[in-house]
Amino acid sequence: MAKFHHCIAGITVTFAILPMAAMAEDAALLKQAQEIFQALPKDMATAEFPITRERAELGRLLFFDPRLTIDADMSCSSCHQPAFYGTDALPKPIGVRQRPHPRHVPTNLNAGTSFVIHWRGDRTSLEDQVFQALTSPITSGQSDEKAVIDRLARIQGYTPLFEAAFPDEPQPMTLRNIAKAVGAYERTLVTPSPFDAYLAGNQEALPPAAKAGLEKFINTGCVACHNGVGVGGGMYQKFGVVEDYWKATGSDPIDKGRFEVTKDPNDLYVFRVASLRNVAMTPPYFHDGSVATLPEAAKVMARVQLGVTLGDADTRDIVAFLESLTGELPANFATAPVLPPGAVTPAK
Amino acid sequence: MAKFHHCIAGITVTFAILPMAAMAEDAALLKQAQEIFQALPKDMATAEFPITRERAELGRLLFFDPRLTIDADMSCSSCHQPAFYGTDALPKPIGVRQRPHPRHVPTNLNAGTSFVIHWRGDRTSLEDQVFQALTSPITSGQSDEKAVIDRLARIQGYTPLFEAAFPDEPQPMTLRNIAKAVGAYERTLVTPSPFDAYLAGNQEALPPAAKAGLEKFINTGCVACHNGVGVGGGMYQKFGVVEDYWKATGSDPIDKGRFEVTKDPNDLYVFRVASLRNVAMTPPYFHDGSVATLPEAAKVMARVQLGVTLGDADTRDIVAFLESLTGELPANFATAPVLPPGAVTPAK
Repeated sequence: MAKFHHCIAGITVTFAILPMAAMAEDAALLKQAQEIFQALPKDMATAEFPITRERAELGRLLFFDPRLTIDADMSCSSCHQPAFYGTDALPKPIGVRQRPHPRHVPTNLNAGTSFVIHWRGDRTSLEDQVFQALTSPITSGQSDEKAVIDRLARIQGYTPLFEAAFPDEPQPMTLRNIAKAVGAYERTLVTPSPFDAYLAGNQEALPPAAKAGLEKFINTGCVACHNGVGVGGGMYQKFGVVEDYWKATGSDPIDKGRFEVTKDPNDLYVFRVASLRNVAMTPPYFHDGSVATLPEAAKVMARVQLGVTLGDADTRDIVAFLESLTGELPANFATAPVLPPGAVTPAK
Repeated sequence: MAKFHHCIAGITVTFAILPMAAMAEDAALLKQAQEIFQALPKDMATAEFPITRERAELGRLLFFDPRLTIDADMSCSSCHQPAFYGTDALPKPIGVRQRPHPRHVPTNLNAGTSFVIHWRGDRTSLEDQVFQALTSPITSGQSDEKAVIDRLARIQGYTPLFEAAFPDEPQPMTLRNIAKAVGAYERTLVTPSPFDAYLAGNQEALPPAAKAGLEKFINTGCVACHNGVGVGGGMYQKFGVVEDYWKATGSDPIDKGRFEVTKDPNDLYVFRVASLRNVAMTPPYFHDGSVATLPEAAKVMARVQLGVTLGDADTRDIVAFLESLTGELPANFATAPVLPPGAVTPAK
């Protein structure tokens, strides 16, 4: 469309023809996009991980409750902050007792669209992530299931909520069920964006710069990895296909990625491809938060993954496309729940 | 009302008379309550500290923004959590870098109704509290104004918001103005409760147990201190008028209260009287969070302030009254704002 414009600049007789040609080009771009991407579903329930209202509501409370962690001062929402679209604006989060997390926080919004969880794919599902986090020394600091449940069981308001969410179980207050409840909640957190409206056929949903950016995003080759419902999140890929990533990002230390999990040399510097939904709202970027702005991140990716030097104008268009992936915060995430009151036992 | 009931128990001929007598007693209790307490205003603006829409909206962003503090991992809302009605469920909050706060967090809801701020009254206004917190070693960790503003100035989205909130100032991004903006925001946070509806004349707003509790709250003498618009927050008082407070609370260490501020022996163990609004939602209790539950806190207060041993039935009624002071969370507090994106400079 943009190129076509340049060709005909100044030729007045094309006024009647231009709209039809432009419309055909617009339709072709949309068709291409619909083959590469999918709009968000209304939620992210699966056969294995269904959503029930009771579980999702309980999970929402638990997500915001700091009493799950050792000093009762950090919750899931401490790093996955609504105000930052489920991230924390830091290169790497700070865990309980100032313990450093090794990698940048990925947003929990739309996270159920990813095929695995975490940068290295070492969590099989949202539920697996929550389960492991509940006794992680960095995320929780609680030593075992007993430590978590003993604290929770003293908060009277939770007992009937666990019973309602897991009605067939005599002892429903378990780490497994906390994980299922928080997972069910997270599977409700989808953020339909202007791009989803576009994929549904609404040409007006994207401004011209975003459409130009989409075309460049496709033609530059970004869609080899950033595709599907998450615009990413569907596969592993080496970070640094044509050039070592740290030469472009300045990363220090150098993270070997999935290799550390599998010890397979093919996995050296391999990470889960990040979903780009809401990417404009979640700086800094990459597994170590080493790049602060979206234009710089787009240039780094083009350079080290595709060997392309992205100019400023193309970068602006691609960023305009990426901005069209910003959705509205779900109300059940933006608005904090009122937690069942209950003091943490005072230290005397 | 309760006593009247006891007198007439079993006398069937009073059926026609009882409603009129009860109505008269209800009316007398309401009249007495209206002399002791006032309903919440629609906001807490003053001549010295006015609210403008621009300042309150900016202040809301700043309140939720962790980038004001040294490691960018704590905001005002880390201790004043919406999910806990502006508190944190801990005896004493944990500040930046795990530094311990010396006293329990008072809720920021309705806080503009208090005559001074903090347990010892060493902050003259909400704005003074915010201003001092911005460079407090425990609350912020930032060393000085330059450190705070340098970080904030790099977040592009804030510049126009400060300009709009302080239109006559060439350099509006200052600690003083952050304090004014957050103060303006906090002055909007009022939580009208069933008790306010009752004070406005709606007898149906309080259940019978709450009215019985109100009567006991008045007759036991609690209202000597817990009165006015905040049901407290209007004066200083010694904690432990008839008995050392720590004998009832188990407090350790013993806090000398306002004496540490003024060095006046008359201020030994003196604290600002706490507002009881939303008290049922904000355990634990007292300046050191030494008491975990509201019934126990009510008994401790009756014992050490008034020399009264409160029985379980009276305690239940008084707690029912205190529960009627729970209001709805303001929408601009319960719902997190979307913050201007901007990464904290990565440490490389």
